[in-house]
Amino acid sequence: MRLAALGFGENREFFDQSLDPSYGLEHVRPMTEKFSFQLHARSGKARAGIIHTPRGEIRTPAFMPVGTAATVKAMLPSSVRQTGADILLGNTYHLMLRPTAERIDRLGGLHKFMNWERPILTDSGGFQVMSLASLRKMSEDGVTFKSHIDGSKHHLTPERSMEIQRLLGSDIVMCFDECPALPAERDEIARSMRMSMRWAERSREAFGLRPGHALFGIQQGGLDEQLRGESAEALKAIGFEGYAVGGLAVGEGQKAMFEVLDFAPDQLPEDKPRYLMGVGKPDDIVGAVKRGIDMMDCVLPSRSGRTGQVFTRRGVVNIKNARHQDDPRPLDEACSCPACSNYSRAYLHHVFRSQEIISSMLLTWHNLHYFQEIMQQMRRAIATDDFAGFESQFHAERALGDIEPV
Amino acid sequence: MRLAALGFGENREFFDQSLDPSYGLEHVRPMTEKFSFQLHARSGKARAGIIHTPRGEIRTPAFMPVGTAATVKAMLPSSVRQTGADILLGNTYHLMLRPTAERIDRLGGLHKFMNWERPILTDSGGFQVMSLASLRKMSEDGVTFKSHIDGSKHHLTPERSMEIQRLLGSDIVMCFDECPALPAERDEIARSMRMSMRWAERSREAFGLRPGHALFGIQQGGLDEQLRGESAEALKAIGFEGYAVGGLAVGEGQKAMFEVLDFAPDQLPEDKPRYLMGVGKPDDIVGAVKRGIDMMDCVLPSRSGRTGQVFTRRGVVNIKNARHQDDPRPLDEACSCPACSNYSRAYLHHVFRSQEIISSMLLTWHNLHYFQEIMQQMRRAIATDDFAGFESQFHAERALGDIEPV
Repeated sequence: MRLAALGFGENREFFDQSLDPSYGLEHVRPMTEKFSFQLHARSGKARAGIIHTPRGEIRTPAFMPVGTAATVKAMLPSSVRQTGADILLGNTYHLMLRPTAERIDRLGGLHKFMNWERPILTDSGGFQVMSLASLRKMSEDGVTFKSHIDGSKHHLTPERSMEIQRLLGSDIVMCFDECPALPAERDEIARSMRMSMRWAERSREAFGLRPGHALFGIQQGGLDEQLRGESAEALKAIGFEGYAVGGLAVGEGQKAMFEVLDFAPDQLPEDKPRYLMGVGKPDDIVGAVKRGIDMMDCVLPSRSGRTGQVFTRRGVVNIKNARHQDDPRPLDEACSCPACSNYSRAYLHHVFRSQEIISSMLLTWHNLHYFQEIMQQMRRAIATDDFAGFESQFHAERALGDIEPV
Repeated sequence: MRLAALGFGENREFFDQSLDPSYGLEHVRPMTEKFSFQLHARSGKARAGIIHTPRGEIRTPAFMPVGTAATVKAMLPSSVRQTGADILLGNTYHLMLRPTAERIDRLGGLHKFMNWERPILTDSGGFQVMSLASLRKMSEDGVTFKSHIDGSKHHLTPERSMEIQRLLGSDIVMCFDECPALPAERDEIARSMRMSMRWAERSREAFGLRPGHALFGIQQGGLDEQLRGESAEALKAIGFEGYAVGGLAVGEGQKAMFEVLDFAPDQLPEDKPRYLMGVGKPDDIVGAVKRGIDMMDCVLPSRSGRTGQVFTRRGVVNIKNARHQDDPRPLDEACSCPACSNYSRAYLHHVFRSQEIISSMLLTWHNLHYFQEIMQQMRRAIATDDFAGFESQFHAERALGDIEPV
């Protein structure tokens, strides 16, 4: 059944970009533009630019909210956009299990399915197989595992990951890789990294020619500068539209992560976007951008919104705390998000304690708004070559701590 | 601490209407207008009119979404308003226990607390003490009970109920009454009704003079026309700004309820709003308006939204059902709510099965939108004296049943 015949008509704008000719009726806007990246400014190692895609521009440094199961939890897509997000991340592992990539493809692709018409980046599924699935069995070919949802058996390879991400209609596709847990022996990290590089080559080949879409390689190599360098060279030899620093934010701590980021971005091409996967807390993000990272993603702002942890200019606020129950002030009087514009801390405390859904809605909105605000401030600071000024104000405000109780 | 001094300034519009002079700084818009009701049209026994309040007009017949704990679950107040709601209902029982009426008063009243500036009706707490609290002990004075939240002991009387509803800042206050479960012996229903009438008198006295606010009496008497008549006479002798038909929708079934509604509204004053408490399903609502009811409230559209039950012109849709998993069509192609405008049944099925918060958000929005749409259609039909035409189309569409599976 063709969707255009069924009420998803002219007034319901969507941009289907499947390249399968059998989806002719959905081709309301073919992908003719190219994927490209332009750097516009630098401040120290920090960079600001724009990634151009047929679905719109991504201003960098960019923070990507995570829409795991075709939704950024507790948010409507229009609200996510209002926070300033240019791009979302979708999780291949979750979507391949439910509702399945084939089903999303039949329904016109992930953008239309979840009502987000701007760019989407999908991960390869590899990382979450390792962290969520059971009975994993790894080989040179790929990984076999059981679904954490219904126990069904699945096989994921570089080729299948590329196929799934194509079916989803992802704009930025990630290579299938293995992400070893840290700490690990150097030999094990080297072995794993070299297999990931062979998988990167298979991913590149399986991705094929898809104008308007991008494939990103993923650097591995643990905390080891030499292995990271070897990985970067292997990726550059294959050639990608962007490069991720993978294998970090897996428990090594901020200090170790920053030490890797002191050299890893420099090992990657200058003229391509650099994406640090799974990061992070506000100070992680600032430290990563300072070291030359252009893109990041993390569940932290949305997950914390559901557990009552709020990020503000002056650090973390735990809304569950009884000190807020009579506080008529907003979370942050300088913040323009709906939670801060319309509600007191006392209200946010009340609805959190009462386990009301509006609590997750408002706190997630605030957190995502705050993360995007940091990104905007960094882009401006880089444009005026004053990243150091931004950074010192960022840390000075956090050092103040939360406002005094009433 | 005064709120106006703390960032809730000029750009954050709110209308505090506490009459306690100690709240002087919050008096940005004193209540000068009166509460009044004007009937504008009739069609058979069905009536259309407007309730005027200082916080805005309420078009009748009106459906009031329920905002139990200072939130209509899974909805922002701006979204509730977008569905067409003119007034919300708040639950005295829940709010007195958490966050407490005194706290809401200190924070500037319920409207400001929950960011809903239009009219609010609060129930008296009596009904929910009976259905939710434990260790209830009833006397002529009132009822003592233990909180279902923390086991704390509370005493609720007509006087205390009036005080709580005043502290909340409710625009339409309900008399404290006893609502006996049905079936019950006639003697028991008569005894209970007569005590409720004595409590109505105490409520009227305790309410005092509050310009711009209304106190509604509640008719009791079970299914018995004579007892209902006796109750109506007692209420009219006291005199109220509006009259509720209480003690229905407690398990007696639609047929018995309609039989009572064939005579009960006629026993109440012609020139005052008539409110049927706790009703109901779409066909209950249509049948009640047909019999002369002006106002209703029910948790059904919001609660059902969270359990995957969807109300449409063509009856009830259970989104959990596997028949929707590949269905690219909206819930109702004629509906303009965000769930129907932007999402397929397949998506709504997916996010419900994945227990995503957006499922509750979208389905609640749709259900509230549909309920308000029925109200609007009835108001129009009454204005053109064609309620019968509306009713036959309403039932004909429902008789079609849901669209065929794809």
